[in-house]
Amino acid sequence: MVKIVGIAGSLRDSSYSYQALELAAQRVEALGAAVEILDLRDLKLPFCDGGDDYPGYPDVDKLREAVKGADGLILATPEYHGSVSGVIKNALDLMSFEHLSGKVAGVISVLGGQPNSNALNDMRLILRWVHAWVIPEQIAVGQAWQAFSNDGKIQDPKLSERFDRFAESLVDSTRKLRGLSA
Amino acid sequence: MVKIVGIAGSLRDSSYSYQALELAAQRVEALGAAVEILDLRDLKLPFCDGGDDYPGYPDVDKLREAVKGADGLILATPEYHGSVSGVIKNALDLMSFEHLSGKVAGVISVLGGQPNSNALNDMRLILRWVHAWVIPEQIAVGQAWQAFSNDGKIQDPKLSERFDRFAESLVDSTRKLRGLSA
Amino acid sequence: MVKIVGIAGSLRDSSYSYQALELAAQRVEALGAAVEILDLRDLKLPFCDGGDDYPGYPDVDKLREAVKGADGLILATPEYHGSVSGVIKNALDLMSFEHLSGKVAGVISVLGGQPNSNALNDMRLILRWVHAWVIPEQIAVGQAWQAFSNDGKIQDPKLSERFDRFAESLVDSTRKLRGLSA
Amino acid sequence: MVKIVGIAGSLRDSSYSYQALELAAQRVEALGAAVEILDLRDLKLPFCDGGDDYPGYPDVDKLREAVKGADGLILATPEYHGSVSGVIKNALDLMSFEHLSGKVAGVISVLGGQPNSNALNDMRLILRWVHAWVIPEQIAVGQAWQAFSNDGKIQDPKLSERFDRFAESLVDSTRKLRGLSA
Repeated sequence: MVKIVGIAGSLRDSSYSYQALELAAQRVEALGAAVEILDLRDLKLPFCDGGDDYPGYPDVDKLREAVKGADGLILATPEYHGSVSGVIKNALDLMSFEHLSGKVAGVISVLGGQPNSNALNDMRLILRWVHAWVIPEQIAVGQAWQAFSNDGKIQDPKLSERFDRFAESLVDSTRKLRGLSA
Repeated sequence: MVKIVGIAGSLRDSSYSYQALELAAQRVEALGAAVEILDLRDLKLPFCDGGDDYPGYPDVDKLREAVKGADGLILATPEYHGSVSGVIKNALDLMSFEHLSGKVAGVISVLGGQPNSNALNDMRLILRWVHAWVIPEQIAVGQAWQAFSNDGKIQDPKLSERFDRFAESLVDSTRKLRGLSA
Repeated sequence: MVKIVGIAGSLRDSSYSYQALELAAQRVEALGAAVEILDLRDLKLPFCDGGDDYPGYPDVDKLREAVKGADGLILATPEYHGSVSGVIKNALDLMSFEHLSGKVAGVISVLGGQPNSNALNDMRLILRWVHAWVIPEQIAVGQAWQAFSNDGKIQDPKLSERFDRFAESLVDSTRKLRGLSA
Repeated sequence: MVKIVGIAGSLRDSSYSYQALELAAQRVEALGAAVEILDLRDLKLPFCDGGDDYPGYPDVDKLREAVKGADGLILATPEYHGSVSGVIKNALDLMSFEHLSGKVAGVISVLGGQPNSNALNDMRLILRWVHAWVIPEQIAVGQAWQAFSNDGKIQDPKLSERFDRFAESLVDSTRKLRGLSA
């Protein structure tokens, strides 16, 4: 069975990044994959100091083990200042090749204004650096404050279709690249 | 007088990013500018949650006010996973246009392996996003573990010259762009 | 007097990139600068083979001399495949530090779909590579087929204001960085 | 059988990009894949004007059909001005989703100075834009003038190993993603 871990790089209480992550996770699950969402708002993570050991922060191991045990990843980030959030970059900094290499990842960004590819481009190159695969399908959710309905659905049918194709590609290519059966 | 604030995106005890920042700062001071270094290892900063207010974290205001009052910036970051550190991105996320717009910045990266431009490119685009100027001169310090002598000097004379040109450009262009006298 | 050279990276007969370039040029001229537009549709340029000499192509020298003699540049490009056009990159490849270093540039991109920063980001990093300055103000004209009126004006007042600020910043910062009088 | 098309973005007579491409092609062939190299020095291609039709340039169709019929791609480019060559970007501009989408690509850059990732990063994002896959393994050949022996072999054993891993990943992942048998 395909195992996917989802992480969002926002600490806001009602975060649109988590709404987007949840939506993607639901569609990935509907295709038969298992999804575990690691909520960075619940984990207690330190700032990365370049070292390996973070005594007093057991959630570092929790993060590392969950990602290490996964076949694929969904990474969602708010676009802050034309790039990924420091929060999600720091979470990635706490991991290394051992955890991330060979994973198949899909990336999502969430913006207050018009959609843009800055954070997605950065995430793609960061994940490449640790030898992860990033699927070509990616999603930028613009004007996030009006993108979701009250019950957490995507308002724009075209954007909703992008989530469908994103989930299909992530599950399908994770199976193929990781040699898992359908 | 030109006022420069220097920030490095590393929390390591003996950080090469801070060594590089110190070197750049010394040369900028030798050209008549004032430099204040904000050491993120001493500041107590929270993870950015997308909001403006961080009660219980007075160092957020200290960071913001220092940057707001500056004419120019030196930003040094270790290159982690082919990009800037989460630590420095988070510090930037805690600030906004109000603090960063119109500043003149020089960027430095520090790598364990061969020099590369990934973190410098990202930093340039992030700073552009908040309408700061980034000088064309930039420095990637490769193989940082052997780049500095015991007394903190740059071993490679060509790299040392890059620091000279970096400092000259930063001070000169900050004066010009901010309309300050020499 | 500030001398600006404008180049657009499109060879289409009725190119939106040239429309955007013309608009920017008019506003730059209104601020007292001289603008020369080099129309790549009229120049006969070869593909760059990495060498310096292109016998039989006198327009290579025309391009190089015009840029070398300028203080600033306006570069407009269609966004093709998430980057600058090969046409404008090739024109830049035909030049070197000798022609481009120290110039102050403003960059514009034109897209058929929604605005995006991909081509602008690439152009910014390419120009940095040859030690040119790129102003923070940049313009992405999305849905270019409906952006301009029949008489070549920008329909969207906010986008029109961006052209104003772009022109002001280009002229002002070129004066400052090149030490020219107002 | 896996069909790979190789293209290099240099027009130099004795191009290091073609040497690198040849080396990668040999190793890909040794793994049982078929490789066709399209030499842009032999093809007569026009500058892309944004249109679909290029009467008088039958090589445009030759390029498009070869790429359309391939499962995977090797793209090698000199790094000019911190990005891909205009030559290879223009060749890509002449193609569209119809030809490039779903292909599995490996990217190589060749530099006169120290290795860097600028052109590789750009190529990765360009190929993503047309929905191609880019393998995590990538190669930057620095100081290309001394990288190859007289008989065209890579001098540095570590770099040679990178070519091995590049070829293995390209063939293996093309098989997996395209559903081809080993």
